[in-house]
Amino acid sequence: MEGKAVSGTLYVIGTGPGNPDQMTPEAQRAVERAEEFFGYFPYLDRLSLRSDQRKIASDNREELDRASAALGRAAAGMNVAVVSGGDPGVFAMAAAVCEAIDAGPAEWRDVELVVTPGVTAMLAVAARAGAPLGHDFCAMSLSDNLKPWEVITRRLRLVAEAGLVIALYNPISKARPWQLGKAFDILKDVLPGTVPVIFGRAAGRPDERIVVVPLSQADPAMADMATCVMIGSPETRVIARPNLPDLVYSPRSHAGDRR
Amino acid sequence: MEGKAVSGTLYVIGTGPGNPDQMTPEAQRAVERAEEFFGYFPYLDRLSLRSDQRKIASDNREELDRASAALGRAAAGMNVAVVSGGDPGVFAMAAAVCEAIDAGPAEWRDVELVVTPGVTAMLAVAARAGAPLGHDFCAMSLSDNLKPWEVITRRLRLVAEAGLVIALYNPISKARPWQLGKAFDILKDVLPGTVPVIFGRAAGRPDERIVVVPLSQADPAMADMATCVMIGSPETRVIARPNLPDLVYSPRSHAGDRR
Repeated sequence: MEGKAVSGTLYVIGTGPGNPDQMTPEAQRAVERAEEFFGYFPYLDRLSLRSDQRKIASDNREELDRASAALGRAAAGMNVAVVSGGDPGVFAMAAAVCEAIDAGPAEWRDVELVVTPGVTAMLAVAARAGAPLGHDFCAMSLSDNLKPWEVITRRLRLVAEAGLVIALYNPISKARPWQLGKAFDILKDVLPGTVPVIFGRAAGRPDERIVVVPLSQADPAMADMATCVMIGSPETRVIARPNLPDLVYSPRSHAGDRR
Repeated sequence: MEGKAVSGTLYVIGTGPGNPDQMTPEAQRAVERAEEFFGYFPYLDRLSLRSDQRKIASDNREELDRASAALGRAAAGMNVAVVSGGDPGVFAMAAAVCEAIDAGPAEWRDVELVVTPGVTAMLAVAARAGAPLGHDFCAMSLSDNLKPWEVITRRLRLVAEAGLVIALYNPISKARPWQLGKAFDILKDVLPGTVPVIFGRAAGRPDERIVVVPLSQADPAMADMATCVMIGSPETRVIARPNLPDLVYSPRSHAGDRR
């Protein structure tokens, strides 16, 4: 083992939905311990770093290169952080880091990996809307960059038939303009048009926007890249409140299979 | 409106998985603001309260009564907290509070509701295991106290066929001893026996226990009431590391529908 570097620690940090009050003390402590920070630049911009800490920003969709760069540095003995918004385990960097370890050199398996969980977008949006995830639910990425569109449509149909509430991440982007409309079409086939749909953006931040419409009126133009779109189940209900915003919730109890 | 009390605020607080370092500053601030705390006693025991703050502990499975009691106090002008472990919107108190508002007197709709999201159990367990929730996944409660068992088995079959990773909450209890074994039987019907299953308990706490076995060897005796059981998809992989625990992850990319 002569001459072999002692591995550093690789922190995979979830910063939460963007409001610093929703980032855990554990994640904050990991930020204090790391020397170099790898991440998509808007997430790195959220961190207040010391002058001895270094940011290496990269673009979206470069997750595997970013993970490999961070692992290389950690294997060389640095304490390194890979930064995600929300929770790093939900459509974010933790899986990319594991993929890089799986495919990478043997010494990357000696890097201590510390993943700090965080509040993922759907939980932040749900908290602002009421309790739309109150019963069984699923989280799906609508991006067909990494999986075939047919897998996505098949899954959408099955989870809607199962009666799960559906949280859609990555619903739309300039490169993927039509997928969300097609997803709504599929869901309208299976679900009643009255099912509530929540478009939740920047939950808990000053520019928060939460819009609730029935599925029959859901329009892809209501979403952008940073929106979490939640489609209720046939059980999901809306409570009108005269002086406060409506509440959307999915009751814990289920009356029985209505099919 | 003469003589009408001004409503207080009802905080629905998620304390995270149990490690105080994983509770958000926002949730901590809500704890400081509330005067009375309603919750299942182990969750209330986690809080350090001032002498002017009052705990009203109740048993598990009394969620609706607890929510109604808290709403009554808030409608009378108190600042009240309802406390959940994990995230209050995931199989927890936020839905019970909404149900109580939906069925309750009109003045409960004037109570300001502030839900503070938290790190839910599956995210804490996933962070310790690697990235098992790295692609599409679902969260299901295995409890048939509030929904028929046939709804649960039908959903299990559909989400397994959809290729989602499955996080099971409330997997087993003294009153529900056989359901988890039956769930494994159903999943073994649909999924390869090699699929990794994670039994995660007390993630991030001193008594943490994370066990990973292939589905073919999954045994309900490995779980208790406080375990989150995660069943991988056919894509989920295990990375052996000579000097560190195995990593379990679900890759972001999908090779195509293998059925």
